[in-house]
Amino acid sequence: MKKFLGPDFLLKTDAAKELYAKHAQKMPIFDYHCHLSPREIAENKQYEHLTELWLGGDHYKWRLMRASGISEDLITGNGDPYQKFLAWCKCIETAFGNPLYHWSHMEMRRYFDIDLPLNEKNAPKIWEKANKELKKDKLFARSLVAGSNVKALCTTDDPVDSLEYHQTIARLDNFNVKVLPTFRPDKALKADQATFKPWIEQFSAAVGMQIKSLQDLLSALEKRLDFFAKAGCCFSDHGLEPFVYGNPDEKAAEAALQKALKAEAIPQADLVSYRSVLMLFLGRQYARRGWTMQLHIGALRGNNERLFKQLGPDIGCDSIDNTCFASQLSAFMNALDVDDLLPRTILYSLNPNDNLILAALGGCFARDIPGKIQHGSAWWFNDHYKGMVAQMTDLASVGLLSRFVGMLTDSRSFISYTRHDYFRRILCDIMGGWMEEGEIIADMALAGKTVEDICFNNIWQLAFSRN
Amino acid sequence: MKKFLGPDFLLKTDAAKELYAKHAQKMPIFDYHCHLSPREIAENKQYEHLTELWLGGDHYKWRLMRASGISEDLITGNGDPYQKFLAWCKCIETAFGNPLYHWSHMEMRRYFDIDLPLNEKNAPKIWEKANKELKKDKLFARSLVAGSNVKALCTTDDPVDSLEYHQTIARLDNFNVKVLPTFRPDKALKADQATFKPWIEQFSAAVGMQIKSLQDLLSALEKRLDFFAKAGCCFSDHGLEPFVYGNPDEKAAEAALQKALKAEAIPQADLVSYRSVLMLFLGRQYARRGWTMQLHIGALRGNNERLFKQLGPDIGCDSIDNTCFASQLSAFMNALDVDDLLPRTILYSLNPNDNLILAALGGCFARDIPGKIQHGSAWWFNDHYKGMVAQMTDLASVGLLSRFVGMLTDSRSFISYTRHDYFRRILCDIMGGWMEEGEIIADMALAGKTVEDICFNNIWQLAFSRN
Amino acid sequence: MKKFLGPDFLLKTDAAKELYAKHAQKMPIFDYHCHLSPREIAENKQYEHLTELWLGGDHYKWRLMRASGISEDLITGNGDPYQKFLAWCKCIETAFGNPLYHWSHMEMRRYFDIDLPLNEKNAPKIWEKANKELKKDKLFARSLVAGSNVKALCTTDDPVDSLEYHQTIARLDNFNVKVLPTFRPDKALKADQATFKPWIEQFSAAVGMQIKSLQDLLSALEKRLDFFAKAGCCFSDHGLEPFVYGNPDEKAAEAALQKALKAEAIPQADLVSYRSVLMLFLGRQYARRGWTMQLHIGALRGNNERLFKQLGPDIGCDSIDNTCFASQLSAFMNALDVDDLLPRTILYSLNPNDNLILAALGGCFARDIPGKIQHGSAWWFNDHYKGMVAQMTDLASVGLLSRFVGMLTDSRSFISYTRHDYFRRILCDIMGGWMEEGEIIADMALAGKTVEDICFNNIWQLAFSRN
Repeated sequence: MKKFLGPDFLLKTDAAKELYAKHAQKMPIFDYHCHLSPREIAENKQYEHLTELWLGGDHYKWRLMRASGISEDLITGNGDPYQKFLAWCKCIETAFGNPLYHWSHMEMRRYFDIDLPLNEKNAPKIWEKANKELKKDKLFARSLVAGSNVKALCTTDDPVDSLEYHQTIARLDNFNVKVLPTFRPDKALKADQATFKPWIEQFSAAVGMQIKSLQDLLSALEKRLDFFAKAGCCFSDHGLEPFVYGNPDEKAAEAALQKALKAEAIPQADLVSYRSVLMLFLGRQYARRGWTMQLHIGALRGNNERLFKQLGPDIGCDSIDNTCFASQLSAFMNALDVDDLLPRTILYSLNPNDNLILAALGGCFARDIPGKIQHGSAWWFNDHYKGMVAQMTDLASVGLLSRFVGMLTDSRSFISYTRHDYFRRILCDIMGGWMEEGEIIADMALAGKTVEDICFNNIWQLAFSRN
Repeated sequence: MKKFLGPDFLLKTDAAKELYAKHAQKMPIFDYHCHLSPREIAENKQYEHLTELWLGGDHYKWRLMRASGISEDLITGNGDPYQKFLAWCKCIETAFGNPLYHWSHMEMRRYFDIDLPLNEKNAPKIWEKANKELKKDKLFARSLVAGSNVKALCTTDDPVDSLEYHQTIARLDNFNVKVLPTFRPDKALKADQATFKPWIEQFSAAVGMQIKSLQDLLSALEKRLDFFAKAGCCFSDHGLEPFVYGNPDEKAAEAALQKALKAEAIPQADLVSYRSVLMLFLGRQYARRGWTMQLHIGALRGNNERLFKQLGPDIGCDSIDNTCFASQLSAFMNALDVDDLLPRTILYSLNPNDNLILAALGGCFARDIPGKIQHGSAWWFNDHYKGMVAQMTDLASVGLLSRFVGMLTDSRSFISYTRHDYFRRILCDIMGGWMEEGEIIADMALAGKTVEDICFNNIWQLAFSRN
Repeated sequence: MKKFLGPDFLLKTDAAKELYAKHAQKMPIFDYHCHLSPREIAENKQYEHLTELWLGGDHYKWRLMRASGISEDLITGNGDPYQKFLAWCKCIETAFGNPLYHWSHMEMRRYFDIDLPLNEKNAPKIWEKANKELKKDKLFARSLVAGSNVKALCTTDDPVDSLEYHQTIARLDNFNVKVLPTFRPDKALKADQATFKPWIEQFSAAVGMQIKSLQDLLSALEKRLDFFAKAGCCFSDHGLEPFVYGNPDEKAAEAALQKALKAEAIPQADLVSYRSVLMLFLGRQYARRGWTMQLHIGALRGNNERLFKQLGPDIGCDSIDNTCFASQLSAFMNALDVDDLLPRTILYSLNPNDNLILAALGGCFARDIPGKIQHGSAWWFNDHYKGMVAQMTDLASVGLLSRFVGMLTDSRSFISYTRHDYFRRILCDIMGGWMEEGEIIADMALAGKTVEDICFNNIWQLAFSRN
């Protein structure tokens, strides 16, 4: 019986172990998509107790606690921090097969040197030791990042953001991690939502012009893209729920915008036109700047109205949609490609049934830049052993795994970097397994180079090369 | 080479073997969803010959025989019973990889002590021995149930059912198995089908009032829910083909009902409203009573019109649908949850592509009761090794496998209880495999407790707890 | 560590090795669906160099080269043949997990006796040796086919085709491979496309009558079916993108046709009627002739307009669609079955999420002929280890793997027959694995017979039996 989370965790063959030990483990991290707070980095956030660090904003954990029957008071409510931690320990103890079971134990080991099983019995000891450790500088926000061998990370930012913390971080003497903003204009696209009008006001203020027309909006977005570019931005990101594309007619888009500005209902067809016009405009902008466009498709958000009203978005009440978007996504990419203005692109779907669809579609628009169109890493509800294996073997089966840009944390937490270790073990296990079984040539140097590329080099190249 | 169906069947690791032998095997069965005939239990049905017991109503077998090219005469027709049995033996002999191959051999071993391979050559011997055994009391309906360590089972019943056989069974002295009805009002929902008007007449008679309006129908349903509750009912069940939800407007629902009562065509939008109004009403009723609501989604039924006209429904001509129901199901659950009237719920889809969708959606509505919203066991076309592994590992990946309510037979046959054994072996193999690979902590007591919970305790708790 | 592509490649158990060595390996090939050029067979095509044979028309390779960032000039352009080959060698070197990695190495071994790793370093040696070999008769088109133990193959042919090369081949003295045409009337169905009017002109010429009405078209198709039948045709094939069926009304179909003949836009509903009427007509014709109808569903073609305009169709810019076709496909099959005019049918979807849908639907229309309705072999983007395992285990789980008609190349290349070897190894590994694990009875003769049936006998029987 293998030791739980031992050195060979998830590595089943000798070749896998060698690939991990000699190649994957040493590679730095480029966490090109996360939700870390730039402010917390700038201010070098310290944590009062383990509950703040671990349970403060982690909606993955909240979901699991709810499924355990724990009351909301001990999840997002005003419960005592230790009681919340205790509830979590009870919940995670039997979360067999859930990635949180692995991640949580890995995080305790990696950052707190605690290798006790997480359970009710050990809770007091873990609480005490972890809280003692949290006083140390090595567990402040910036040390967590730098100590995790992170060379660069990209936060997720609304166009209205001032990027002041990114600027502060860039000026720090003693912190050599690139912290770059990502342009995520979701609120600009969601013209049918209550968030739209207030956002337009904020955005108008941010760019110093009142947005009254489609042309105004596009001009303002272009200004703001320049502003983000100056802060080092080279990624955009879109949450598209659901993905729609069709009839990118500017008049229909303008009509939709005018209705939205008056908070009136928008006919569905006009809304689709509006979103299509904006996405084309933005896609071309990204292409001209050499940015990489990330499309996140397939989330179904805010399902629970009761908790949404209490707690807002991103509180663990999202799920997976199933829509038939393949032909529309194809049409969108084609409309950009036809003018050679399809940017480098990473396609993600929350629905793993879409893996092959995305991997195969991406291959239709590959052009000149190696790995230009990517099937993104297993995302959110797929960010676990089964999901990662599915994504990588699907990608390999119809495309080039060797060009894959690999892992990101997508996390709000500063101790999620163990997810990269998790990913790398799985990657090495796949590649090593193939070698042991005689399915790839036993050239360890070549396989090792490929592992290193997937761990770090490919994404660095995609993000920063300008060929 | 492992012995076929040997003691370690499907158990690949020592940990799996121990989990099975010490924990899973001994647990009783709560078969909370099946299609057994309460009359046959009440009357302690005896079987004339193996063909009656084994091939009499088993549309799984009929499909396979048709795929073998066997003529309908030897499947559902007037063929000689032994010839039918012989045809089945020829068919099953090479049904490698099909669960019927395992189930059939397991059933012969478990109930008839026959371990011969099922094939043409052995057919006469098996026929003779099995028919001799069938004369014995241990193979009468009630002994089959009690002898299989069944503590409770839930049949599937139309609201018009008199439940007389449930009442008879409850009064039996020498039979300690709970036999409870399940409320399955599919015909009430299917207002667009030819079955509707006759059903309304039957239902009117059953409740002693003529149903002329939506209000009448809801009142009658409520009466009948009370009646079922008195018989111990604590589960409802819905076959939703396809699942639809939207605009639960009572006027539109009334309009649909009035058309249905005149056997006129119903506009699709009104039909959706009708079904939505009824489902909301019923969901709230279930919640108030502490019942568990089962939603079966994704069947495409009665595909073969020729055989439907000859033989009716449930004759092996059903298949799997693919529809985009995620957002509608979310809206339905939310509409109940928002008033805290979402009952305990088990979500099943016949399409395994929906596994993660259901497991993730359920997590959005978890509340207070441990495991309140369940992703149901691999159903019908998924009730096999691959399907069960997929369902359990998908569930574990995004939720809590440890709270899972586990297996049911969904069967019309009194010797299908070996399916529980099949499921338990697969469950133990998954859990044991994780332990051997160092993916869960090697705490056999805890893993064993979890296995026991999934085998029996969780469903007992969900069904009968009233916290 | 197993040797790369060694004798036990993909065979993990002793039982698998025995099944392969004693049963699978020796079986002849019936390549019942491919895109080989009958002209090249008739003319016994010789190849100038490896680039012509290997990269000339292989859009699988082109996609992978584009994903590598190779310029179009070295893919489909006017680049130097050796430079193209070199680019391919660089690309394939790290295409780990992609079937082309296996196929390419297998093809070099099988046909050229070259077992060097494909990479930049070995490129010159491989180029030299392969080009030398290409001068030999054994690598001319007909020798490649006959030398691969092919007993029969079916090309893919438009109804306008003269079939002259098929006739030439049939008259050859020294070539005993059946080369049969397949009736693929896609252009007749695609009334909404620019190809339609020119095709109608060609077809009118081919049948010697001007097609002016639906009745003309149906008569002409019937004539042409007779013509194909005389050339030995016993398969039809349809690329249905997307699959639609509904309201097979002849008036609506006629209206659609009249618009199409004037190159006017066709209302979607009329187009669906048109396609439905044609498919019903053709399906009945196939049934009357005992032909096998192949339905290929789920491709999304010609995504890249820029390359389509340069290069036309089938150049590696196709992908996978996701549509909800299950109920429409069921209705189509039922409409044929109800008159007992559903032909032998093979259902393929490019989207592996549809595996179970197709396998389960097929089971609803099984009738009299063993294996009459087939779930076709893993197709195109699924033609790899993972895809084949998925297709075969899905099929086994809900149907009869033992009746499966097995592998086809679907290829434009004369050296793709190694794909049959690839498939057979995977089949034997599945069956052997089951035997080793005690999941099937250890009857090697029976398992071996089943393997032989799937490799060759089943498809021969389905195609040529007339019971």
